[in-house]
Amino acid sequence: MNKIRILVTNDDGIYAPGIKALWSAMSDLGQVTVVAPNRERSAVGHAITISDPLRVDEVRRSNGFKGFSVDGTPSDCVKIATQALLEEKPDIIVSGINLGSNTGTNIIYSGTVSAATEGTMLNIPSVAVSLNSFGESDFAGAKAAAKAVVSHVLEKGLPEKTLLNVNVPAIPENEIKGYKITQQGNVAFKDRFEKRVDPRGRVYYWMTGQIIAPDEESHMDHNAVLDGYVSITPIHYRLTNHDFLDELMSWDFS
Amino acid sequence: MNKIRILVTNDDGIYAPGIKALWSAMSDLGQVTVVAPNRERSAVGHAITISDPLRVDEVRRSNGFKGFSVDGTPSDCVKIATQALLEEKPDIIVSGINLGSNTGTNIIYSGTVSAATEGTMLNIPSVAVSLNSFGESDFAGAKAAAKAVVSHVLEKGLPEKTLLNVNVPAIPENEIKGYKITQQGNVAFKDRFEKRVDPRGRVYYWMTGQIIAPDEESHMDHNAVLDGYVSITPIHYRLTNHDFLDELMSWDFS
Repeated sequence: MNKIRILVTNDDGIYAPGIKALWSAMSDLGQVTVVAPNRERSAVGHAITISDPLRVDEVRRSNGFKGFSVDGTPSDCVKIATQALLEEKPDIIVSGINLGSNTGTNIIYSGTVSAATEGTMLNIPSVAVSLNSFGESDFAGAKAAAKAVVSHVLEKGLPEKTLLNVNVPAIPENEIKGYKITQQGNVAFKDRFEKRVDPRGRVYYWMTGQIIAPDEESHMDHNAVLDGYVSITPIHYRLTNHDFLDELMSWDFS
Repeated sequence: MNKIRILVTNDDGIYAPGIKALWSAMSDLGQVTVVAPNRERSAVGHAITISDPLRVDEVRRSNGFKGFSVDGTPSDCVKIATQALLEEKPDIIVSGINLGSNTGTNIIYSGTVSAATEGTMLNIPSVAVSLNSFGESDFAGAKAAAKAVVSHVLEKGLPEKTLLNVNVPAIPENEIKGYKITQQGNVAFKDRFEKRVDPRGRVYYWMTGQIIAPDEESHMDHNAVLDGYVSITPIHYRLTNHDFLDELMSWDFS
């Protein structure tokens, strides 16, 4: 029998609790290979490493978890796994479980989602899983959601260059109300820069800020999670604004 | 008279030739402030710096060029410029002139485009300009294109959250055939990893590869540039695959 091959990665790094939870959940579905950054690479977006060499090391943690750490970004991990480390193309790529949701406008900063995006560019079905919590976390609901979504994708496939972005509320598994298919909403960060002076008298800035959640309907990703649902958004990177093409063609640039 | 305020940034760094060319071109149109990475930050995509402080230094080059360097990414530069350094919101953000075109699937890796994307997220009209050359470059055509496009945007505005991605062929200015409004095509990289051993016997990998340009029509970004036109693509980050929502709603996850 041919076993399902699952590539697991993340952006919180190979030592994060979320990737161990995902590894454990995916091990019920098939043969898992973990290839993940050697340290936290949150908010790296779709960065790739082209000016430095990449190193790969084997990592072992408790309960049989093993994998490869890469001193690169989530996108690097997907590239090097599929094109240098793995003997066979994986059947699916699953990224997460991220600490902190990835919804709305903010997903373009997300390393978790970018790993899945990289998978779609390589024509491999891909899923990103995030938990709406930044603290001590119970991964039971997110593990169950990851298994349910990945099982369906393995059975039914995904459209070309489309990934599923899954966000799970941080509540006990039995309180999750169900699954909701959603659209990318408009949740964003309002940045603020805190200006400080270091012990040597030099100025520096910390980027900080807060999440701005506009009033939106319940079929938007962020709101579905707030309402207690697992949000599943189909994401693709077709970036042309077709609605604006005609007007733009009427501009006379010459 | 109120002078137009133009924020100039890039991803090749504040010492790159392209940003000086862009600064010079934009100085004909208004009052320019340069805020750019202190070193090359190509292929960083939409990365932002959240775990390290950011430092800002004043930089002066020849011919009156001055600006602020930031030890961050292009997105960081746009954020810190608009939210900490500039007293007034710029009327437009222009990113470039990048060495190397940013077309097709590859634009999601582009720091040049991400700076403009960040601008649109802040509701500031934004334009990314790239030259299809990696070597010694004549910026005359790209400077003229940047001026033409920016002038039109200042006059007419852009739709919400939409930027213009401008790619210029690396040919003498008088050989450029004109402007073409295009769509994002499917040009991509085929990666390859070169495995090497360092002097201490440790394995490392270089990411390398080549551009794969599928047969596409002339209204696609990459082909327009190859045909000798300045390509202008309206880009937005509405990432939901709406065509797939109905089918996904029919999946039974419970």
